[in-house]
Amino acid sequence: MEFLKAVTVQQALELILSTPPTPEMEMTGLDEASGRVVAEDILAAEAIPGFSRSLVDGYAVVAKDTQGARETSPAFLKLSGEVRIGDVARVHAAEGSCVLVSTGSMVPEGADGVVMQEYVRALEGEVEVTRPVYKGENIIYTGEDVGKGSVVIARGKRIGPFDLGVLAAIGAARIKVFSRPRVALLSSGDEIVPVEERPPFGKVRDINRHTVAALLRASGADVTFTGLVRDTIEDITEKLTASGEYDLILVSGGSSKGERDHVTDVIEKLGGEIMLHGINVKPGKPTIFGRIFGKPIFGLPGHPVSCAMVTVRFVLPLLRRLTGEALRPPMTSAGTLTTNIPSSYGFEEYVRVKISGEGGRYLVTPIFAKSSVISSLSEAEGYIVIPEGMEGLEKDELVEVHRFE
Amino acid sequence: MEFLKAVTVQQALELILSTPPTPEMEMTGLDEASGRVVAEDILAAEAIPGFSRSLVDGYAVVAKDTQGARETSPAFLKLSGEVRIGDVARVHAAEGSCVLVSTGSMVPEGADGVVMQEYVRALEGEVEVTRPVYKGENIIYTGEDVGKGSVVIARGKRIGPFDLGVLAAIGAARIKVFSRPRVALLSSGDEIVPVEERPPFGKVRDINRHTVAALLRASGADVTFTGLVRDTIEDITEKLTASGEYDLILVSGGSSKGERDHVTDVIEKLGGEIMLHGINVKPGKPTIFGRIFGKPIFGLPGHPVSCAMVTVRFVLPLLRRLTGEALRPPMTSAGTLTTNIPSSYGFEEYVRVKISGEGGRYLVTPIFAKSSVISSLSEAEGYIVIPEGMEGLEKDELVEVHRFE
Repeated sequence: MEFLKAVTVQQALELILSTPPTPEMEMTGLDEASGRVVAEDILAAEAIPGFSRSLVDGYAVVAKDTQGARETSPAFLKLSGEVRIGDVARVHAAEGSCVLVSTGSMVPEGADGVVMQEYVRALEGEVEVTRPVYKGENIIYTGEDVGKGSVVIARGKRIGPFDLGVLAAIGAARIKVFSRPRVALLSSGDEIVPVEERPPFGKVRDINRHTVAALLRASGADVTFTGLVRDTIEDITEKLTASGEYDLILVSGGSSKGERDHVTDVIEKLGGEIMLHGINVKPGKPTIFGRIFGKPIFGLPGHPVSCAMVTVRFVLPLLRRLTGEALRPPMTSAGTLTTNIPSSYGFEEYVRVKISGEGGRYLVTPIFAKSSVISSLSEAEGYIVIPEGMEGLEKDELVEVHRFE
Repeated sequence: MEFLKAVTVQQALELILSTPPTPEMEMTGLDEASGRVVAEDILAAEAIPGFSRSLVDGYAVVAKDTQGARETSPAFLKLSGEVRIGDVARVHAAEGSCVLVSTGSMVPEGADGVVMQEYVRALEGEVEVTRPVYKGENIIYTGEDVGKGSVVIARGKRIGPFDLGVLAAIGAARIKVFSRPRVALLSSGDEIVPVEERPPFGKVRDINRHTVAALLRASGADVTFTGLVRDTIEDITEKLTASGEYDLILVSGGSSKGERDHVTDVIEKLGGEIMLHGINVKPGKPTIFGRIFGKPIFGLPGHPVSCAMVTVRFVLPLLRRLTGEALRPPMTSAGTLTTNIPSSYGFEEYVRVKISGEGGRYLVTPIFAKSSVISSLSEAEGYIVIPEGMEGLEKDELVEVHRFE
């Protein structure tokens, strides 16, 4: 009987992330670009804004003309014209004069400030300015948002809504992004039936296929379910071989003794390599990582909670690497534990939690449930990590919460 | 000249959220269900698991037979058979005997504990157990995950990866979800050109269309761009009328004086109602909300940052209501300000920030930029809110950070 030789979390991540990322590239339009990863630095071919614009409705002036202006002693300025929004400014703002502008209008030459309409009394061909403006007030100058030739979005950034705004501003209607990594997902085990079937007594429906696929898709993968695998050398060989074209192969299940042996045996028989067999985490210890057909492969534990947590902690970091996304620290919140949590020394433990409270200050309550209880994950709003060198956490401790979704 | 009559944030949200949500429903399969909102409580038609299962590889036993067992004084048990994974247990675990099981195997009748294989020495037809198990150890009992008839996912929940796992477990291959709200998005302003065009001098590309659409889609909307609107009564009337079939209408831009008047005039001319004109927020004051053709309509400010922040703070809460999603508190983190931030009394201010640090404890640095500088949003990782009754925040204050994305 072979027992698992487990590695630490750090050793596991080093092995897993030693996979060289070789993402391909493709062009995409802005409407499809959200969530994609930029494949090369995007430079602004032009300055934004392309001309100095007024930020308010009012009057473009020579700022020093308004010096000392106040309600009881306004500055009188001759109205020399108007710049309508979208038009080229054809008037000049000379000293002693002003030009009517709207929000977004081009600021006429000579003007270096815009008085808001609220601080102006319009008379016949003339205006009274009742408040001074400083040089540059209410103007956004040419190139103040984006300088011509500057990098607006760096390679490796995942595009969010506001990045789309910048891309639109500079006219980058089509951009080069990394292709989504293609992931083959298999479910192994003689006891597994597809969700549409009513499982005969003794069998269960395939849960991991759905949770793992959704986690991967949310992180930018193109996931294909390549099959339910029976627990025979022949079926595992056939289905793994058929998945050889993908960038990453995941086999969930195979958590029973025989299956574990079969999956590792087949990987080696097909010329692959087992790089680790077991990680010191709870839940999720019976995890396999290796290479086959030159591609990374995970054997994920069968228990749904273990499978999901290993996906979150070990598969997603590799997936992000394969998407070409630059590394960034995880987004977490701090919260106060409502109860003690025991933990096993030597294991990094993941504890599902519920979160209550608001305003950046939260109460964190662990959900204690067995690692096969999927409803405990559905109820959880996040999880906390207990490092391997600790034997637990205490009530009222401040802990770091990783949010789900 | 008509000045804006502004309302407070609270008044604005009350008006906006008074819109009755009447989402339609549709059926969806599990592979398309991620991010959709559940339209009716989902009940478990069967218990999960449907039979008591072993959580480990080992031997199913009568727990009290192992009482006091230890390395030097093991309990001897007769091996009476095996339950293979996926099979129905046909053997019985009588006192003094044990049954070989795998992770996920059905626990045979009579057994009330499973000894892990690591604590057993297998002999010929017999095993030595070297550690006691307690009653129920390493077993998940019928219905322990999900009780038959229990609500597994409540109406109004947005489906995440782990919810899919629960749905798969109970065999809910198709579920009833709320239809995505259909949103009509228009961009108004004579100065606006589509992103594909090179703007003539004095004009600018349409930024808001892209940022607003992406923000709405990420929150579950089905967004249709229904047109660039010229600043004439006729064009506004035509394009608004053509958008009357949608669940929500958004007109971005119209931030110049004339356009603002035109949009509000047309809404009223078409029998609609302006419910607010101006909100005491910075940026984003020149916001319009009303009803037209019985549907809610927003006039969003033209400055890209103002438009984005009003979308985040006022449009998305209404959109979530229209998706049928149950209200939930925002997810935020706490962080320490690295510098003072001045603010205007009487306005709720939104300050874009960069976040550094890890581990739930962050440093928060404001990005000071004019409200038309879209690159400042692209760089921001989140924003903080300065309430209307404050005149600013001080360095080293603990603040609540709302994360973008």
